[in-house]
Amino acid sequence: MTQHLIRDLDHLKRGLLDLSALVEESISKAIQALVNRKPELVDKVVAGDAEIDRREVEIEEECLKILALHQPVARDLRFIVAALKVNNDLERRGDLAVSIVDRVQYLSTKEPITPSLPFTEMAEKVHGMVRDSLRALVMLDTSLALKVLRTDDEVDALHRGMYGTIQKRMIEDSGMIKRGVHCISISRSLERIADLATNIAEDLIFMVEGKVVRHKNEAFFDEWE
Amino acid sequence: MTQHLIRDLDHLKRGLLDLSALVEESISKAIQALVNRKPELVDKVVAGDAEIDRREVEIEEECLKILALHQPVARDLRFIVAALKVNNDLERRGDLAVSIVDRVQYLSTKEPITPSLPFTEMAEKVHGMVRDSLRALVMLDTSLALKVLRTDDEVDALHRGMYGTIQKRMIEDSGMIKRGVHCISISRSLERIADLATNIAEDLIFMVEGKVVRHKNEAFFDEWE
Repeated sequence: MTQHLIRDLDHLKRGLLDLSALVEESISKAIQALVNRKPELVDKVVAGDAEIDRREVEIEEECLKILALHQPVARDLRFIVAALKVNNDLERRGDLAVSIVDRVQYLSTKEPITPSLPFTEMAEKVHGMVRDSLRALVMLDTSLALKVLRTDDEVDALHRGMYGTIQKRMIEDSGMIKRGVHCISISRSLERIADLATNIAEDLIFMVEGKVVRHKNEAFFDEWE
Repeated sequence: MTQHLIRDLDHLKRGLLDLSALVEESISKAIQALVNRKPELVDKVVAGDAEIDRREVEIEEECLKILALHQPVARDLRFIVAALKVNNDLERRGDLAVSIVDRVQYLSTKEPITPSLPFTEMAEKVHGMVRDSLRALVMLDTSLALKVLRTDDEVDALHRGMYGTIQKRMIEDSGMIKRGVHCISISRSLERIADLATNIAEDLIFMVEGKVVRHKNEAFFDEWE
């Protein structure tokens, strides 16, 4: 590997970590806006998303440049391909943070659903998964990737629990329906951010160990019905 | 471009079109299972998804092989990068079809929500978008890509309408809540499949015309609140 390629790959890795930090911040702010009832954070998340979108386009161009200039092979090539997918997914996670704050506007005008919902706990786990999946990819650390997969199971369990609680409250009190639909959607957005982190972790394990752990079949609705 | 590269790119394009056809079939079956109340189609969608997953892994390997062997540049390189993303997204659309049928199991045990919901109309539009976005990419046809973007607006409008109708019914009759939550989720899955097709169309326009039409800001919830 040439010095130039090493330098360009390092730059790409830093770019991805920076983008991930922006996305993590966006998720944290979105959940703070929700839980601490701070609709003033909504605009910050939306503004942050424009920056995330800009960086995604830049990083994709950077990947294309590295491919064209250095024509990497073997593990370096796999890394660039993983980087392209991760970059795309990071941008989508940013969109999901925006879709969370879209609902905060409405929810902050109403009393919260009781009993209180574990959004903070869920968001902390998801935040950790986003951070760990990127660090795992950049450092080729499969044990960190496995930690991400384990945490995903916990997030799924929280999502299922939340779903059940909210549905029960909606049935008891029709005044909760609109709030409930928004809260289910927020829980699902968090769960999808977690899934995207899981994809990265699975891709990394494949890249390093050649073992496909993608496409586990999680029959979520079979379980809770 | 060498004859070998031309041949390998053609093979890749055919692979993507075949994968897209499988995904289109999966979406159609999922909606038939829902609308025509045929839970027996559920297993077919789930079995079809395993095939979709297998093909996705194969196509990614094919892209890596082309990059390593031919070290393509310029438009060919951009095409491979687009193919990698599309491949990933096609697999996700397959997952969304599965998440639709997961809900059909429950819904087929209950009377449908009235007034009847326009799932068939929405699914036809989404199906067309999936097909057209792939054809646009393979034939580098930006006018077909623009058609995909226009249809996405129609799908968004149907989703918004469905959301409103279902919510109203849930408020009128608490017996509809569980059904309603499932139907909102199906509508959202269709809308997300449409978004993924839109991403392809936007990427193609960028690839051919160098114009970024990604990241339009669609403040969905601002509109219907």
